[in-house]
Amino acid sequence: MKRTAFFISDGTGITAETLGQSLLAQFETISFNKLTRPYIDTPDKARAIVQQINAAADSDGARPIIFDTLVNQEIREILAESNGFMIDIFSSFLAPLEHELLSRSSYSVGKSHSIAHNTNYAQRIEAVNFALDNDDGARTHYYDKADIILIGVSRSGKTPTCLYMAMQFGIRAANYPLTEEDMECLQLPAVLKKQKHKLFGLTIDPDRLSAIRNERKPDSNYSSFGQCDFEVREVERLFKRENIHFINSTHFSVEEISAKILVEMGIERKLT
Amino acid sequence: MKRTAFFISDGTGITAETLGQSLLAQFETISFNKLTRPYIDTPDKARAIVQQINAAADSDGARPIIFDTLVNQEIREILAESNGFMIDIFSSFLAPLEHELLSRSSYSVGKSHSIAHNTNYAQRIEAVNFALDNDDGARTHYYDKADIILIGVSRSGKTPTCLYMAMQFGIRAANYPLTEEDMECLQLPAVLKKQKHKLFGLTIDPDRLSAIRNERKPDSNYSSFGQCDFEVREVERLFKRENIHFINSTHFSVEEISAKILVEMGIERKLT
Repeated sequence: MKRTAFFISDGTGITAETLGQSLLAQFETISFNKLTRPYIDTPDKARAIVQQINAAADSDGARPIIFDTLVNQEIREILAESNGFMIDIFSSFLAPLEHELLSRSSYSVGKSHSIAHNTNYAQRIEAVNFALDNDDGARTHYYDKADIILIGVSRSGKTPTCLYMAMQFGIRAANYPLTEEDMECLQLPAVLKKQKHKLFGLTIDPDRLSAIRNERKPDSNYSSFGQCDFEVREVERLFKRENIHFINSTHFSVEEISAKILVEMGIERKLT
Repeated sequence: MKRTAFFISDGTGITAETLGQSLLAQFETISFNKLTRPYIDTPDKARAIVQQINAAADSDGARPIIFDTLVNQEIREILAESNGFMIDIFSSFLAPLEHELLSRSSYSVGKSHSIAHNTNYAQRIEAVNFALDNDDGARTHYYDKADIILIGVSRSGKTPTCLYMAMQFGIRAANYPLTEEDMECLQLPAVLKKQKHKLFGLTIDPDRLSAIRNERKPDSNYSSFGQCDFEVREVERLFKRENIHFINSTHFSVEEISAKILVEMGIERKLT
């Protein structure tokens, strides 16, 4: 069965999209066509969306599901005239919250909501720049400023994880690749020994690593299963011997890996 | 007034956190201490969280607000015994959705929800790698594979925006810096002319640009207000003359800039 879902907002649409995707993921037997429609902030834009909703309703033979975080009442009323099934995120929860907090929300006052990212902006950009500048062992003399240093073999997922932690949580994450040379002598590089409390290991199944490396350097020793298997085994042995927490990234998303790392390291998110 | 808010999940906590932050942002007069507690998947972990909630309740003299996306009923019941005020995200919306979709959710069946990021994983990592490889004009011969190419002066926010679009939406975003040399002749570089339909401009207030550049290269011509003002004016003139859509990044978050770019370029999100 196929249904269409709309995530509609007068802002970025990220809240409607995140919640909507989580809710729809609970219905594993239904295939959803998901459409995000941000910045719907005028009656004209709302009327254009109503046409899209009604077209999807006709084509699916079923009501599209609408997740919205619209503040403006006039715009909400236009959408309510569509042939969609509305899940009303803000009004469901803001009334009980107003009661608990003894305070009226911007929503019920009719003011547009400004998500308070501006205070976080500088910190987040700084964290992203830190991750880029301290990627792949490029610089090691700023490790005292890092919140965390990921270590692992080449292509084990260190860079995307560092960037995600920077972008999403404002964490200063550096990463250092454990190369073949490091493995020969089976030692933690001197530059990392001083920062041992900040180290976190990433590992990965050798066959997955081999597949990833093959996309970069096909048919090389670097991407061979034998080499990947050797490196992963040596690195995992190092992690265990040095008591470095580590996680196997093979079956997790970047979000999951990042969230698990913060829990294991006891680091609080910095952007809230 | 100060209140504590907990975002509690048996997964990454991102849904509870995103929705909770949006809702709390509607209460501008209250200052919230926000704590995310992911991977609460055992009764023992739940009981430890109850202690944290009750400690916050004592210290604030008011009930902490709890946003949860817990699936397991036993764990939810332990949390319900705390001195917190629970906003129950899943159960509020899943019942009406089950009715509309004529289908039972994993939640009501008692199965843990798996957010379907795995199918998206490869595409997202590829997009992040594309952004890194095609950052700052480093490579231009893959521009035919790009979904979008951001252009602007140095430090106008191109790199974080490209990385965010890759990470959040799976968009292949390259970026090219317009340097002083490009400005002297006031021409679009040849390598960009061929890709004009993919170009999007970022601009920024000169005083903000000067402040950002000063952090990198203090007291340089590069970071002087005069130079920044000159570059921004020339680049905006170029955008207008060449009919290139552009946005001033000064007062927007990375999320907002990215979402607005997709709308203006008519590009659908690729990770849904």
